[in-house]
Amino acid sequence: MTVPGPGYAITARVEAPASATAAGDLAVAVGRVGGVMTAFDVVESRTDSIIIDISCNALSEEHAEQITDALDGLDGVRVRNVSDRTFLVHLGGKIEVTAKVGLRTREDLSRAYTPGVARVCQAIARRPEDARSLTIKRNTVAVVTDGSAVLGLGNLGAAAAMPVMEGKAALFKRFAGVDAWPVCLDTQDTEEIIRTVEVLAPAYGGINLEDIAAPACFEIEERLRDKLDIPVFHDDQHGTAVVVLGALRNALRVVGKEMNDCRIVVCGVGAAGSAIIRLLLPLAPADLVAVDVDGIIHPERPGLHPSLEWVAEQTNRERRTGTLRDAMPGADVFIGVSAPNLLHESDVAAMADDAVVFALANPDPEIDPSLAQRHAAVVATGRSDYPNQINNVLAFPGIFRGLLDAQARAITDDMLLAASAAIGDVVAEPNPLFIVPSVFDSTVAPAVAGAVRKTVERAREHGTGSVDVGAALALGEETAKAVEGADD
Amino acid sequence: MTVPGPGYAITARVEAPASATAAGDLAVAVGRVGGVMTAFDVVESRTDSIIIDISCNALSEEHAEQITDALDGLDGVRVRNVSDRTFLVHLGGKIEVTAKVGLRTREDLSRAYTPGVARVCQAIARRPEDARSLTIKRNTVAVVTDGSAVLGLGNLGAAAAMPVMEGKAALFKRFAGVDAWPVCLDTQDTEEIIRTVEVLAPAYGGINLEDIAAPACFEIEERLRDKLDIPVFHDDQHGTAVVVLGALRNALRVVGKEMNDCRIVVCGVGAAGSAIIRLLLPLAPADLVAVDVDGIIHPERPGLHPSLEWVAEQTNRERRTGTLRDAMPGADVFIGVSAPNLLHESDVAAMADDAVVFALANPDPEIDPSLAQRHAAVVATGRSDYPNQINNVLAFPGIFRGLLDAQARAITDDMLLAASAAIGDVVAEPNPLFIVPSVFDSTVAPAVAGAVRKTVERAREHGTGSVDVGAALALGEETAKAVEGADD
Repeated sequence: MTVPGPGYAITARVEAPASATAAGDLAVAVGRVGGVMTAFDVVESRTDSIIIDISCNALSEEHAEQITDALDGLDGVRVRNVSDRTFLVHLGGKIEVTAKVGLRTREDLSRAYTPGVARVCQAIARRPEDARSLTIKRNTVAVVTDGSAVLGLGNLGAAAAMPVMEGKAALFKRFAGVDAWPVCLDTQDTEEIIRTVEVLAPAYGGINLEDIAAPACFEIEERLRDKLDIPVFHDDQHGTAVVVLGALRNALRVVGKEMNDCRIVVCGVGAAGSAIIRLLLPLAPADLVAVDVDGIIHPERPGLHPSLEWVAEQTNRERRTGTLRDAMPGADVFIGVSAPNLLHESDVAAMADDAVVFALANPDPEIDPSLAQRHAAVVATGRSDYPNQINNVLAFPGIFRGLLDAQARAITDDMLLAASAAIGDVVAEPNPLFIVPSVFDSTVAPAVAGAVRKTVERAREHGTGSVDVGAALALGEETAKAVEGADD
Repeated sequence: MTVPGPGYAITARVEAPASATAAGDLAVAVGRVGGVMTAFDVVESRTDSIIIDISCNALSEEHAEQITDALDGLDGVRVRNVSDRTFLVHLGGKIEVTAKVGLRTREDLSRAYTPGVARVCQAIARRPEDARSLTIKRNTVAVVTDGSAVLGLGNLGAAAAMPVMEGKAALFKRFAGVDAWPVCLDTQDTEEIIRTVEVLAPAYGGINLEDIAAPACFEIEERLRDKLDIPVFHDDQHGTAVVVLGALRNALRVVGKEMNDCRIVVCGVGAAGSAIIRLLLPLAPADLVAVDVDGIIHPERPGLHPSLEWVAEQTNRERRTGTLRDAMPGADVFIGVSAPNLLHESDVAAMADDAVVFALANPDPEIDPSLAQRHAAVVATGRSDYPNQINNVLAFPGIFRGLLDAQARAITDDMLLAASAAIGDVVAEPNPLFIVPSVFDSTVAPAVAGAVRKTVERAREHGTGSVDVGAALALGEETAKAVEGADD
């Protein structure tokens, strides 16, 4: 797993002798130190010298320096400057606010601003529900973080979380036309976070919580769902769970097993793990064993954290004890949302035949996927350089698109189930290397959005009730097929 | 002041007989009830009938109905539906969030999102100042309100304030390329407002407070200026004051008077009035008399509100008492930021020769401008249907453009003075009907931005000090001339 990637990409502006061998010399020099050249552009040609922009992928910042040194070390070659392409892309931020209305003439101003806008304000003052049609509430989601769990980097705080939140907003727009705005809160006090989101809520049609550490994230989401009349969704919990379930259903189809016959091990009971367990249990697997850093979760485990009691009660039918290693033999499915290198090849070998392994720890999975592949029938990770990438981008844009279009006041588990079924069913014919759609498959977001929207509408018609798992999944599948059909 | 305006604009889709006189009949019918037809489009032509979209400006919603009825009443004519153009423009909100970065390929995602974005987060975690270059903080302002004083409509609350805040954001982008985001707070508690803005601040390069009622707005701005390391600016206070001062300096040029010789009456001591007084006093007018709903402000006035004590101490040199009427005789300048119909024609007649009257109450000024025009040399209002419109749009976009470009940590009065001088000096040759630029004059925002930016830079070079009024004004004028010159 040490392939130079675009995460460490540089562009070096290089002055080199004007000779026929120049290009080759430079490319060879880059390759010799393990860099991958991705672009080569002569920007200026003089009699004796040429100026070239060379773009390369590297393994790390240190490696990028080695590449630059290698170029600089060539005879007659001088590196004039080096731009880090990732940083370049971030200059000034990655999103902007644009007007949807013309503001060229006095007429325009009089409608979009004073005096015309006053009537719109008065209309909303009389009927607050009209904000859902007359303002950005119709299409906008707040992406809220306190910076306490930024990606895999830990507690970096509000300012350092901004690039991720801006990126999230860009993805919402790109994949589902949802307007999203970064709300980075300079506080990590649960009460303040809840109150601040409550105070901000009028402008928004939904709240996407992001990168907020467990266990605070559970209380924050629960209490905000209670207070607000717009959907509240913690993507690190439910986005992951939705994509995992969609992929898992396809994986089980591939290996010819029924969920009811499967014993599942979930490793990691943080945000993602908890949500995966909650989404899977109603599907009645034969058993589900949860493992955290202190081993298998069971009711007699000493010092069991109160937040894990529900897990202990509702999982691990056989009351197994011990470590992850003790959970693996005979398991049909392993889902890891924990940390690198927790699983050995022998653990996978000890699983049932036709095992399914989702090793989703980022950036380094619980086990090297190529090792897992030797023993499991279907392997998935969170990485883009392996098949079967479990990527939340398959879920959150379409989910919010559906919620906004239905003007939903809340998000419930049947919507998550419908979304997961829609994602899985975009893959018409799953195989071991293709259990989940590509993030660039443009039918995914509409399929997910349609499934969620119809679930909301159906709940309105029938009144709220307990989650009908089968109906939710079926509705998701239908919608995916309809979108696929329309696309042909 | 009863001209049909685009604030009440409708488009009626009408089915009419297919005859040569149809167009004329419809237009005449609209005009007969006092509507102003602004557009006529045949959208469908059949043998016997045509479908036409007719757009009209009206005086009010009732008048718009009269127009529709007049059309419907014609022989053979049927109004199929009516769209209110103002409401149409607001459907789904007036702004959107767009990505500035491409997200088409996996390479793109790896730079703009994971894994590349992680390095940017870590860089900001190490050096928080880098957020000002690597995130939207570089170019983004929060437009913050609690909805307690929405336009002239009063306390409508957060949701109803949204259309104004969205419009403000659209104006920021349109006029100065500043990204602005609406922050409508569902609270009117001063402490909560201050704390919420503090918690939100990391993402932003500036805070524009808007439509927050006096006197809370003074404390909120002051305490936020104290807490934050980004500029905080209440547009209702300082935007108004900046444009008023710029216009006033030109008006005095037109009538050939010096500020030091002028007696000024300021009517209304809310947000705008207080800020105007604060900005004018350092320019040392001969005298400044402030009047509010309880009459002239002086130290002995019974029951004088504590928030007005500074006004009583620093104005009204002659310690006049009484009502507005008592303040007017012999005054050179009247600035009204109060309420409609407070001034009689005789009050203006009693002013000094070559009087200047700014009647800025919105939507109806303190006096009908045509009445004031009979006695005053220069008249200005906040209305777009009279000459000399005092419009904050001349100030806030350029001011924040300058603050963001200078990466200012605060806004001070010398920046306001420089901005006002720049605005005034965009008008190369003022005359009684032209003392302030048109809002559509594209040189205004760059001139204001340049003046503010240079003021920030000069303050950094020389260290912070007391406001140098003369220097600030001169710098503003220079910058305006430079922009004008570049534009030729």
